[in-house]
Amino acid sequence: MSGVVPTVLVNGKVVNCVPSTDRGLLYGDGIFETIAVRAGRLCFWERHVQRLLAGCERLGIEPVDVAQLAQECQLLVPHAQQAVIKIILTRGSGGRGYHAPEPLHPTRIIQLHDWPGWPADCAEAGIYTRVCRTRLGHNASLAGIKHLNRLEQVLARREWTDPATREGLMLDTAGNVVEGTMSNVFLVKDARLVTPDLTLCGVAGIMRARVLELAKQHSIATHTQPVALDTLWQADEVFVCNSLIGIWPVIGIDTQAFPRGPVTMRLQALLADEPMSVQMDNPV
Amino acid sequence: MSGVVPTVLVNGKVVNCVPSTDRGLLYGDGIFETIAVRAGRLCFWERHVQRLLAGCERLGIEPVDVAQLAQECQLLVPHAQQAVIKIILTRGSGGRGYHAPEPLHPTRIIQLHDWPGWPADCAEAGIYTRVCRTRLGHNASLAGIKHLNRLEQVLARREWTDPATREGLMLDTAGNVVEGTMSNVFLVKDARLVTPDLTLCGVAGIMRARVLELAKQHSIATHTQPVALDTLWQADEVFVCNSLIGIWPVIGIDTQAFPRGPVTMRLQALLADEPMSVQMDNPV
Repeated sequence: MSGVVPTVLVNGKVVNCVPSTDRGLLYGDGIFETIAVRAGRLCFWERHVQRLLAGCERLGIEPVDVAQLAQECQLLVPHAQQAVIKIILTRGSGGRGYHAPEPLHPTRIIQLHDWPGWPADCAEAGIYTRVCRTRLGHNASLAGIKHLNRLEQVLARREWTDPATREGLMLDTAGNVVEGTMSNVFLVKDARLVTPDLTLCGVAGIMRARVLELAKQHSIATHTQPVALDTLWQADEVFVCNSLIGIWPVIGIDTQAFPRGPVTMRLQALLADEPMSVQMDNPV
Repeated sequence: MSGVVPTVLVNGKVVNCVPSTDRGLLYGDGIFETIAVRAGRLCFWERHVQRLLAGCERLGIEPVDVAQLAQECQLLVPHAQQAVIKIILTRGSGGRGYHAPEPLHPTRIIQLHDWPGWPADCAEAGIYTRVCRTRLGHNASLAGIKHLNRLEQVLARREWTDPATREGLMLDTAGNVVEGTMSNVFLVKDARLVTPDLTLCGVAGIMRARVLELAKQHSIATHTQPVALDTLWQADEVFVCNSLIGIWPVIGIDTQAFPRGPVTMRLQALLADEPMSVQMDNPV
């Protein structure tokens, strides 16, 4: 594997090919992780691996061999460069209909992607967002994990084409605010940090967990609770976050303006100040 | 393409390989059809195509070229044999994150499968079923179409391993009966035929539509409505149906027995009596 660095590995092989009988394709029967690569290192590796393993357990997929996964990721990671590693883990190929034979060996896909072409100033200037019409259905058995059933997000993302709108906020079928199409959402009200409860739907993001921890460590009151749309409109500050963007202040939702406020800026600063040992775990 | 009949075509090519960047794999961003093949012909072809086109429209996927699809299916269909053709249509390969570039050419996968090894007497003897714990979430924007986000069905099917249990019945998050993991469900009460409303979740099956039509044509009163679990327990007869099994009487749900009743048997007979021209559409 010398010479050109591969950009895709499927079950350890340099081939961009998954059989059409893979259950990931047939049913979205799997999970994924999107990991920021900086200076040749996989950020928050341990957290991504823990969520991947939690997803395996929830779906009853054979747990991934973490050492092997780490080794394969390292083969793809370029040095001294910002990039994205995407890991997709499916239940595997086989079975008739929904019933999967056991044991079934998961399909392990690792992709290297260029860093997304977002404007550099989103973190400082903030972003415009909208409230999507497409709703998130409730299903406690799937909530929290980053599974491959993402049609709700795909449909929500199709609702706008204006490049100035950087993210869409999604409500659940009860009308509560849950998350962005590709991010988690936080709001600040009277200096308290509030983020939607994800018991019934939504993805429990790695950066969401890190932001909650940082807030607690620095005595910012945090509340994880159902968030009515009205609560969002009355917020003092709003921001979205994920593993790639970090924290982006929300300065507009539909026609309503929001400031880039002090709590958001403090959390951005805390995140930027994290020691390399926390942000830059090296898996191997 | 002489010699051995292929069993998989991907975009018309005899290759069982889908790129790992296909949105069907990444997000379950697509739809599928499972079609019974009898005597070399694709049963209910027109209905399957109509549902496929409806799915394309709902998800905003470029409509499939029906003539091309029919031609490719014919390449795979063996003669004088019972088999299954599965068509999978994804939005295609490409795009960063949930946002898909336009235009994007759908990925067209056609698979030939053996006829499932169900016991021959299910239609006469009836089957045992259970009520699954896994619920169906509500989402009107996805309800009815046969999309690739099927983790709910996968998890429900994992709830039992006893081969004597042929199907699991699924409730929605409100506790109403919606469908089987791989079938639609009907019940008979006081000679009226009742099937769950699928406005909020569930797949609108081809055989479900045909059964409703047959009932109406033969003056059996039909009702499509929300069905509480209690209504199921009080039913005189219960049956499940899909394109492959036709109608299977349900003779047990968990510990409660049900008879193979007269309305179920009448509908089975009507279905068996259908003229070849209705059941055996030839696509080309």
